[in-house]
Amino acid sequence: MTESEMRSAPYEFPEDSPIEQLEERRHRLERQISQDIKLEPEILLRAKQDFMKIDSAADLELMKDASVDTVDDGFKEREMPMEREYQRVSISGEEKCGVPFTDLVDAAKCVVKALFIREKYINCSLQNFCKTTAHALQDLGMKTLDLGIYEAVPETPVDADAPVHPPVSETHPYDNQDPKNMPPDTGYGCKMVDGVVHVYTKKNNMDKYVSAELDLLYPDLKEYIADMNVMMALIINGPVKSFCYRRLQYLSSKFQMHILLNEMKELAAQKKVPHRDFYNIRKVDTHIHASSCMNQKHLLRFIKRAMKKYPEEIVHIEHGRGQTLKEVFESMNLTAFDLSVDTLDMHADRNTFHRFDKFNAKYNPIGESILREIFIKTDNHIEGKYFAHIIKEVMFDLEESKYQNSELRLSIYGRSRDEWDNLAKWAVKHRVYSDNVRWLVQVPRLFDVYHTKKQLANFQEMLENIFMPLFEVTVNPRSHPELHLFLEHVVGFDSVDDESKPEHHIFNLDSPLPANWTEEDNPPYSYYLYYTYANMSVLNHLRRRRGFHTFVLRPHCGEAGPIHHLVSGFMLSENISHGLLLRKAPVLQYLYYLAQVGIAMSPLSNNSLFLSYHRNPLPEYLSRGLMVSLSTDDPLQFHFTKEPLMEEYSIATQVWKLSSCDMCELARNSVLMSGFSHKAKSYWLGPNYAKEGPESNDIRRTNVPDIRVAYRSETLTEELHLITHAVRTDELDAIDEEDSLTMDSFPGRR
Amino acid sequence: MTESEMRSAPYEFPEDSPIEQLEERRHRLERQISQDIKLEPEILLRAKQDFMKIDSAADLELMKDASVDTVDDGFKEREMPMEREYQRVSISGEEKCGVPFTDLVDAAKCVVKALFIREKYINCSLQNFCKTTAHALQDLGMKTLDLGIYEAVPETPVDADAPVHPPVSETHPYDNQDPKNMPPDTGYGCKMVDGVVHVYTKKNNMDKYVSAELDLLYPDLKEYIADMNVMMALIINGPVKSFCYRRLQYLSSKFQMHILLNEMKELAAQKKVPHRDFYNIRKVDTHIHASSCMNQKHLLRFIKRAMKKYPEEIVHIEHGRGQTLKEVFESMNLTAFDLSVDTLDMHADRNTFHRFDKFNAKYNPIGESILREIFIKTDNHIEGKYFAHIIKEVMFDLEESKYQNSELRLSIYGRSRDEWDNLAKWAVKHRVYSDNVRWLVQVPRLFDVYHTKKQLANFQEMLENIFMPLFEVTVNPRSHPELHLFLEHVVGFDSVDDESKPEHHIFNLDSPLPANWTEEDNPPYSYYLYYTYANMSVLNHLRRRRGFHTFVLRPHCGEAGPIHHLVSGFMLSENISHGLLLRKAPVLQYLYYLAQVGIAMSPLSNNSLFLSYHRNPLPEYLSRGLMVSLSTDDPLQFHFTKEPLMEEYSIATQVWKLSSCDMCELARNSVLMSGFSHKAKSYWLGPNYAKEGPESNDIRRTNVPDIRVAYRSETLTEELHLITHAVRTDELDAIDEEDSLTMDSFPGRR
Repeated sequence: MTESEMRSAPYEFPEDSPIEQLEERRHRLERQISQDIKLEPEILLRAKQDFMKIDSAADLELMKDASVDTVDDGFKEREMPMEREYQRVSISGEEKCGVPFTDLVDAAKCVVKALFIREKYINCSLQNFCKTTAHALQDLGMKTLDLGIYEAVPETPVDADAPVHPPVSETHPYDNQDPKNMPPDTGYGCKMVDGVVHVYTKKNNMDKYVSAELDLLYPDLKEYIADMNVMMALIINGPVKSFCYRRLQYLSSKFQMHILLNEMKELAAQKKVPHRDFYNIRKVDTHIHASSCMNQKHLLRFIKRAMKKYPEEIVHIEHGRGQTLKEVFESMNLTAFDLSVDTLDMHADRNTFHRFDKFNAKYNPIGESILREIFIKTDNHIEGKYFAHIIKEVMFDLEESKYQNSELRLSIYGRSRDEWDNLAKWAVKHRVYSDNVRWLVQVPRLFDVYHTKKQLANFQEMLENIFMPLFEVTVNPRSHPELHLFLEHVVGFDSVDDESKPEHHIFNLDSPLPANWTEEDNPPYSYYLYYTYANMSVLNHLRRRRGFHTFVLRPHCGEAGPIHHLVSGFMLSENISHGLLLRKAPVLQYLYYLAQVGIAMSPLSNNSLFLSYHRNPLPEYLSRGLMVSLSTDDPLQFHFTKEPLMEEYSIATQVWKLSSCDMCELARNSVLMSGFSHKAKSYWLGPNYAKEGPESNDIRRTNVPDIRVAYRSETLTEELHLITHAVRTDELDAIDEEDSLTMDSFPGRR
Repeated sequence: MTESEMRSAPYEFPEDSPIEQLEERRHRLERQISQDIKLEPEILLRAKQDFMKIDSAADLELMKDASVDTVDDGFKEREMPMEREYQRVSISGEEKCGVPFTDLVDAAKCVVKALFIREKYINCSLQNFCKTTAHALQDLGMKTLDLGIYEAVPETPVDADAPVHPPVSETHPYDNQDPKNMPPDTGYGCKMVDGVVHVYTKKNNMDKYVSAELDLLYPDLKEYIADMNVMMALIINGPVKSFCYRRLQYLSSKFQMHILLNEMKELAAQKKVPHRDFYNIRKVDTHIHASSCMNQKHLLRFIKRAMKKYPEEIVHIEHGRGQTLKEVFESMNLTAFDLSVDTLDMHADRNTFHRFDKFNAKYNPIGESILREIFIKTDNHIEGKYFAHIIKEVMFDLEESKYQNSELRLSIYGRSRDEWDNLAKWAVKHRVYSDNVRWLVQVPRLFDVYHTKKQLANFQEMLENIFMPLFEVTVNPRSHPELHLFLEHVVGFDSVDDESKPEHHIFNLDSPLPANWTEEDNPPYSYYLYYTYANMSVLNHLRRRRGFHTFVLRPHCGEAGPIHHLVSGFMLSENISHGLLLRKAPVLQYLYYLAQVGIAMSPLSNNSLFLSYHRNPLPEYLSRGLMVSLSTDDPLQFHFTKEPLMEEYSIATQVWKLSSCDMCELARNSVLMSGFSHKAKSYWLGPNYAKEGPESNDIRRTNVPDIRVAYRSETLTEELHLITHAVRTDELDAIDEEDSLTMDSFPGRR
């Protein structure tokens, strides 16, 4: 009996049992089906004709300075020859893309136009635009707006053989609360004009004539509408559609071939890396809501413990009089003991629940909302004490796991001006912080609700409630000391709500300005997104001036509802969550690929809400090279085990038969698209992570074979080259239009 | 905002968002698709016409003595009105089954015949035959072989309000190793005749004339072959096929309706149960191999710890000289630090691995087989010390979890006579025991391998190696004291190997007897199964006489390969593992349903080997009421989290959208079909678990609503009644044949 067999069954069994061949066939087959190759035979043939083997210089380089290994982990000197070469698929022949040249040119022009639009908005808001794509566009010879984005990334803080764990800071970030140690007041004044905050040199008098307006590249609404219309026209253009669809199919099958040819080498490379495997590589949960980041069993245990520890604590005001925790439970006549996950009823299968709810209210302990109120809110009678505790328990688990991190969503509703201060006070007071956690702030799109409740007169009030405090604290940190501390760990903004809600309004030049938005209807998605973007963009410039870190926009986008949400997302946001509907919009999917827009996907969540698991497009996106990551969204509702993120990875791997290499690539993506610091990423992914191509990878940290990284970057470069080359050979007509469109965009242009 | 919405999203959102209706529609739709109703409209109509509401007396009864609650869990007195009634689907009209009466009769005869065959073999081997089915057959008026099977189940050891945890025994079961305290020698003699052990009153002289043969109901080969042929003819009978297919479809859609009508009531019932939820109900992993019961990360950690603790221990003999653990690692030039899950390469995606293996051996640390040898074997140089340690760690985790249990498979190969003693010595020496664990012994079907290796001359030797020690220890426990102790925790036999291996031989009367089976070919599946069954059956009678517990047959069956494996399984075994191929054999599937044959399914394992996840038939089986449970099979290869069984449940629930009630039903099934003691089950499931119908259920322990249990038993009863009624009205012709077939089967018949 060979070792192989002995390893592959829980008992020894004889040589070449047919089970293996059988499996092998099935597996191959399923892979193919799952990636539905609808590729033209001649391309397939051509491609299969000549494989070339090339030494990837990058690997060689990496090899040299990779020979030493990290210290704290007890690595010791060893030579380990990396995989230097792999089988590349190259296409030869006249026109390489399977469509007539003229079609290619027309399509390429559109694609390039769209990419320029995204680049403009991303750069102007100081978010990150994919380097490789940017270079390709630069090659088109037009100077793009330079905001010091392209100035070389800050020198890497770590050297090649640094440990994989960043040094832990001794002092707690919330220790230094003394306003005196905070940056001083600049004396600027802020005022919201047409839904966007403007900043002036003087506080008291903001009249244009006496107080100069700071040049912070205030976005231009008209231009945005124009660009949006360009995009809309572009994504429904028939020929472009079929071109993009074809390219996406090509990318699928190219990857398919890459796997068939290099699977073993990739696996080999992973095996040669000492110590590293999927379990001890860095993962970031890039989309998870704080109020449901604990799984249901955890919440249940916590509630029971609280019942035992603080039965007499006043936790809730009912009709003016305080209720102790004990009384609350009595009022629902439940004891802590009675409570079960079922009674808690936090878990998915929401529809069942909802039907049930309507069916008979008496079955449904009315107490639950109170429980939610008491245990998972920051602004309740006990000032979110319990919520803080439970979040800290989750944080502790993450720190225990060492390699798992989360970007938790906290809500700002925009109902009142003090929400930010309350949130910050909660965090600082209860010292809710972990090196493994960063915050995102989610703004639910609920203007219509607050408006009908008379809490908001117009949309601009909502925007002011959301952004004014941020400008004030940036202008003068000492005015909101806690908020200043808290913001240092906030990486960006999310926009949340049910996208499938019907939108009765189309955002155009006739749309009322925020101050005049007083109608019953909720503003459409793109309206919310634009004004969030606009204010964030101005805020970022102000913060950059003050030397503070900047924010990014990472909205829920394309989970459901109309396709054009994905247009707004593409134009304005660095990453998105979900993006399910890209599967129905080839042009956008191709653009998201070319621009490497991060997409945090949560198949388990989708499975309960919108799309059954095996129809989820994630494996297809991954095969085509879109920048996807796995996230949990909502462990309280959707996950069962104590390790929701691992559960998410596990199920994905099982159902879609991902290889260990695929999983590690997903994990690496999650870190890349996360909001953690440049320094942290340098430790986690390698000192050169911010570079392009395989040299950016350090397999000893990521467990991703250089082969895979090389394949991805080479494929992206070729794809971009195909586009730009077509445009250039067409005498740059396209570019001129582009020019007129992109150059005189902003007042602040030299 | 209503509470419901507040609960269903991580942020507050407004009333009646369309998301709910959307979900609801999708969910309904998917459910339907997933259970592909191909039902005749008129049946559907008829069924939908009249629902009746009936008080189920059982519930009322249960309610009374259910008012008091368990003590140790701190339950206290409380009245809780159970759900008494639910919406029943009843079919009215002349002939109710949608086929002409004559067809029904013909089919019914066949089905009844098959059920009698199973009943005979199960009863004769002292295994458990489904009570409800037995009663239905009894009603056909023929006295079936009575072996005291039907004498009322031993009085329940626990009363209604007993705790859910059985009292733990103070003394370790392996403490009492003194042979003197063991039952005495009976002086019987054993000899294998035609592959089946026969027992005689005298040890020395087993000649028939001087020593009487004990009457232990020795099975009759001719009869078995005859019955098997009857079965084979029956499952390929066209009309019977389409009848069974139709009934299965009917069962699917009846369940579908039951859910649509009672989902909320079931959920309500679950919510009303204090304290109990899916997390704290009893689950048994009914199919898991000991040598891979730990997940890969666990094994890795263990190996690294061993390296640190015992580097100098001699663990392995290489070319006559002992190697220390350190040397072993040096010989593969690996340090403990280098080891990663990837290098260990124990994880699934075996095909990739195998291709890889062939592709280039040098990538593949040859040490792995040695590692397996050292760490997960019982019979190595260190006498399985490490393996014992790691198993005990797994056991500890199970005990920690309180509610999770396992039936671990250990291998007996039948190559030598001392395998049993060695295995038992290993278990007793290292005190490998847990209240949460029982053993199954798996016999790989590898005669051909050992035969070609000249380790076995003929098949009978293999049978002797497997069974002789068991008879010896039963006749005289003091002859193998450890084995005697060990056997008390062994519940039965499993037969394992790749079922898809081609079988060149058909088992019939011309087949060589085991003593004459000397050819190269491996005996076919049914041959292995019959001789295992035959010897186990005789052994059980001997053990019953001595007051020892008896064994059951629970083979791997229907994972792949020819359908007729499932015929042998149906005839001879109490439960099976896998049963995937039942989805292609309607008659057998229907029979497995009517006889409630337990099926331990492992979708994750199947997913990697044979059948992609979403095509797995488990949800269909469950909806039709087959006795299915979830098991992990092989966590080392297939699972990622620290809780493999929960992972298995989680993924199943996610992918197939199981309700909490479905999950709890699966868990309850797993306990019912497990080999744990009557006493344990009484504590875990309720004092009356062995009864029929809803009174067998105690929702306070199982969290399964009585409605669900009532639906299952009523549906089964109706289905059996349909069959038996048809047969009876046909003047019992069928029965007479049956009679001749079942009554004069065994010598030992009065």
